[in-house]
Amino acid sequence: MADPKTLDDLFLDTLKDIYYAEKQIVRALPKMSKAANSPDLRAGFDKHLKETEGHVERLEQVFDIIGEPARGKTCEAILGILEEGKEIMEDFKGSPALDAGLISAAQAVEHYEIARYGTLKAWAKQLGKNDVVRLLEATEKEEIATDQTLSKLGVQQANLKAA
Amino acid sequence: MADPKTLDDLFLDTLKDIYYAEKQIVRALPKMSKAANSPDLRAGFDKHLKETEGHVERLEQVFDIIGEPARGKTCEAILGILEEGKEIMEDFKGSPALDAGLISAAQAVEHYEIARYGTLKAWAKQLGKNDVVRLLEATEKEEIATDQTLSKLGVQQANLKAA
Repeated sequence: MADPKTLDDLFLDTLKDIYYAEKQIVRALPKMSKAANSPDLRAGFDKHLKETEGHVERLEQVFDIIGEPARGKTCEAILGILEEGKEIMEDFKGSPALDAGLISAAQAVEHYEIARYGTLKAWAKQLGKNDVVRLLEATEKEEIATDQTLSKLGVQQANLKAA
Repeated sequence: MADPKTLDDLFLDTLKDIYYAEKQIVRALPKMSKAANSPDLRAGFDKHLKETEGHVERLEQVFDIIGEPARGKTCEAILGILEEGKEIMEDFKGSPALDAGLISAAQAVEHYEIARYGTLKAWAKQLGKNDVVRLLEATEKEEIATDQTLSKLGVQQANLKAA
């Protein structure tokens, strides 16, 4: 087999990367929800867990459309980002700043995903895969909305309590 | 010494995280510039290297304002994100899709920074450190502008060549 060299290969590589990442996020969110002090933040994490399960399913639909098996590929980026979130949960346990830290960790996750979905969407457009574009865009919108909700929760609640 | 428990501690922790990250990015950008095929992308990376050196200096000003020594703290997130960029450079060397991959790697970096500066800015506002807010905001704007420039270069050039 030849080395991966085309935009199709790059698309598939990155699809595997975000598929792995979404599955890691499905595992991390219940821990973040359990750690959160604010009921609103817990509810936000729980809602986003359901959405994230939907993102995994949408990615499986994308794999199906392009005729590839749904398989992840270790994503060092999300592992590093989630590791930092774990550190915050440990270091700020019992602190009034914990929720502010959890929000910051979650926003780093959201921004990683926003970057990846934005890229995948641009590549899918270039490759003329319009049904794939629609699936990616639906998830991208939910990630952006989650990031905005987290910003609001931070400013209106968590940062106030932490200060 | 007591455990770090306040928003000030969280701010300082995250400041050290992004300071370490910016210094890693200063090291990574010349490699990405050297790898890029398109002169426009190379010029974009070179311009952003200069900006990033300025971001390091701004962070040193922030440390100075809050009366702390400028010290980084290993940031697993940026290490993971840059590791993925390195993999793309290796796997797509000589491929017409290389530049598209480099852009995607750089946008993951930008989004990490946008998340971190957004958070730090919100915390600095909450803590009433307005001069710090201004420094963080100046960098945040440049990160957002860089992300947009990269998107444009992707759509107008790199993705076309890759497909």
